[in-house]
Amino acid sequence: MSDNQTQSDLQKRIIKQARAARLAAPAIASSPLEQRNRALEAMAQALLDHRGPITEANALDVADAQKDVANGSLGAAFVDRLTLSEKRLGSMVSALRELVAAPDPIGAEDQAWMRPNGLRVAKRRIPLGVIGIIYEARPNVTSDAAALCIKAGNAVVLKGGRRALRSNRAVVHALRQGLEAAGLPADVLQFIDSPQRQSVQTLLEQEDYVDLIIPRGGEGLVRYVSQHSRIPVIKHYKGVCHVYLDASAKAQRSVDIMLNAKVQRPSVCNAAETLLVHTSRADDLLPQVAQALVEAGVTLHADERAMAALKGRFGDKCVPATEDDLYAEYLSLDIAVAVVDGLDEAVAHIQRYGSEHTEAIVTEDYSNAEAFLNRVNSSVVLVNASTRFSDGGQLGLGAEIGISTTKLHAFGPMGLKELTTTKFVIRGDGQVRP
Amino acid sequence: MSDNQTQSDLQKRIIKQARAARLAAPAIASSPLEQRNRALEAMAQALLDHRGPITEANALDVADAQKDVANGSLGAAFVDRLTLSEKRLGSMVSALRELVAAPDPIGAEDQAWMRPNGLRVAKRRIPLGVIGIIYEARPNVTSDAAALCIKAGNAVVLKGGRRALRSNRAVVHALRQGLEAAGLPADVLQFIDSPQRQSVQTLLEQEDYVDLIIPRGGEGLVRYVSQHSRIPVIKHYKGVCHVYLDASAKAQRSVDIMLNAKVQRPSVCNAAETLLVHTSRADDLLPQVAQALVEAGVTLHADERAMAALKGRFGDKCVPATEDDLYAEYLSLDIAVAVVDGLDEAVAHIQRYGSEHTEAIVTEDYSNAEAFLNRVNSSVVLVNASTRFSDGGQLGLGAEIGISTTKLHAFGPMGLKELTTTKFVIRGDGQVRP
Repeated sequence: MSDNQTQSDLQKRIIKQARAARLAAPAIASSPLEQRNRALEAMAQALLDHRGPITEANALDVADAQKDVANGSLGAAFVDRLTLSEKRLGSMVSALRELVAAPDPIGAEDQAWMRPNGLRVAKRRIPLGVIGIIYEARPNVTSDAAALCIKAGNAVVLKGGRRALRSNRAVVHALRQGLEAAGLPADVLQFIDSPQRQSVQTLLEQEDYVDLIIPRGGEGLVRYVSQHSRIPVIKHYKGVCHVYLDASAKAQRSVDIMLNAKVQRPSVCNAAETLLVHTSRADDLLPQVAQALVEAGVTLHADERAMAALKGRFGDKCVPATEDDLYAEYLSLDIAVAVVDGLDEAVAHIQRYGSEHTEAIVTEDYSNAEAFLNRVNSSVVLVNASTRFSDGGQLGLGAEIGISTTKLHAFGPMGLKELTTTKFVIRGDGQVRP
Repeated sequence: MSDNQTQSDLQKRIIKQARAARLAAPAIASSPLEQRNRALEAMAQALLDHRGPITEANALDVADAQKDVANGSLGAAFVDRLTLSEKRLGSMVSALRELVAAPDPIGAEDQAWMRPNGLRVAKRRIPLGVIGIIYEARPNVTSDAAALCIKAGNAVVLKGGRRALRSNRAVVHALRQGLEAAGLPADVLQFIDSPQRQSVQTLLEQEDYVDLIIPRGGEGLVRYVSQHSRIPVIKHYKGVCHVYLDASAKAQRSVDIMLNAKVQRPSVCNAAETLLVHTSRADDLLPQVAQALVEAGVTLHADERAMAALKGRFGDKCVPATEDDLYAEYLSLDIAVAVVDGLDEAVAHIQRYGSEHTEAIVTEDYSNAEAFLNRVNSSVVLVNASTRFSDGGQLGLGAEIGISTTKLHAFGPMGLKELTTTKFVIRGDGQVRP
């Protein structure tokens, strides 16, 4: 069989799967919440029942990855993310069960009105239809993402990373049994069982069958997906989050918020990457915050005015910032530091260098707090709180499917509601248009 | 100057314009409603003041188009759409003034809640940022689309059809003067002054500066834009709208709704394209409705069961339907007709052949009405009313920017609200994440 032949068979299989998901979608879209919840519980139970085959499959994936770590072509952290320990499997089961308690994101009519001709119009929340999730290593995404889509009444097509292929296959096998046990068609959960990159491209072309693509992974994956997709994509690029310490900022609060925003978990998108300080506080507050950061292991990349204020007291833990530093998403124990003349310059800096993700102001000044909330159009804007609250769970959205950094459909942390849309439901008694 | 040089200059100019729109966006995003309304009024006045140059420019566009009509390369209807008569200019002015009365789509916080740690969270409606509109002949779209974007606090980049270039240039010149008269930067309105197709491609690549693309035009334009854009696109494809006459449908009501849905304006997307009739009414109601349609000049494309019921009584106004007829968006005095066994088959038919645009049921049966509303997930679903109500103005959304046939961000008729997004506004008193 030629390569072309093989590729064509793979394409046919993916098209068939996307079509099967589309055909199964109405069954789950019209299923009552009780049945979708029963399915989540059965999926959790099936993961427990299939624990054996899942961990065996995972061990094979891990063994292959370890070979590549040994020959230096893969980082050791990868193996950790790939491994489905007893504890991780337990977390997958808990996540499914917690979702049972979440309220139904579909069915509600938040708005309804009557037209002058007596037509009654309502906007009713409905599932999106079929959602494609394209992700990288972690096999727990397989059950987490599938469960969120299913809770919201959607069919789902999963394409995981090639190094987790056997693990994902075993997890999906269990989850589909759970769906069937609850009387839902197993076809609402499709898994693209192929290590080939071409399979991603084929999935991205199924605009007749798939309503939304969510890529979960690094910037390379997200860029590839968004440039090649014919289907709408919800993207997460980067988070260059700012904390601005205003003239009236309380000192201890500034230290606490800045440390939490930078140090608590530096590798995530809602960690702070730039510290802006009002010029009137360059000589008292800035050195105090800088001291705390340096003690926590952070390297400061200071602009000219910040360098002058810090007077070289932190040695090689405080280096001159380049223009690139002001744009940087470090995801490490590094932070850019700049002194600004006031709120206007802080807002202008954020508009110029920011990524519209999350920004915080620390201030006691009412007008400046409100002006910051009004003028900064990032997805999350905070007064006197850490940027680390920019997270679906922390904001009370329930489960989080991701954080959107583009403005269409969803902007910022996304919960179950963002996996739905609305239709107009209209009740008449014979109206025709004049 | 070489061709490459020219193209590169064009690209640079478009990138510069997109960037200028992005830089001007914060000024309009933070402008109070009063100022945006003053701008709309000033734009209306500027159109009146520039009536002379606008009609002169339009006359040149029309003259060129007429040459192509004369040599047969263009249809005569095109010239009509292109012509800016006194009356059309008056409508453009009225549309701007009517928009002044619309409520502000930005600023509202529809949802707000408190977290257990005391953080106050709200979702506030904000402008999308920069919106690109790519459209074909009608020069009135230039002012209509610009005004909608501006009312919703957005900057806008317009790319009109090449045959209306001089008309659009003159209209934009006037509108920008109106913006400046109200103290807003003229740069919030950008016009791509080029007849070249390449300019569309360049615009579609400015994902750093443009947040949303709305193509307004035929299926070819929409497909081109959605396949080439790196920016999210809100699409309108086709409307294959169904009317289902249930077993209990009232006869006169069925005739009225069906005539209105098919005949009142057959060329639009919310006109009915398929009539479905319950088998128990194939011998009484179907012939009566068919008679009314044929008298109104409609050709029936009947499936086997409908053909049998109609017994050839309409001669060549009733022809056998092919499979393609059931998928057809005729946009003409043609309709597909099929007999179904009941609600289940009607819903299945709509899922198979429909376009998820607009579907109506005529029934007196409570359970069937509710089941139709629940099970049909098209953007607009109606009971006992004409499909022609699937329209922003008719549904009370105020001005309409278009009808989305994809489910992301907006589904169905779109008003000003669909030109906005939301940000999370969070008020704390020192909270950090544990």
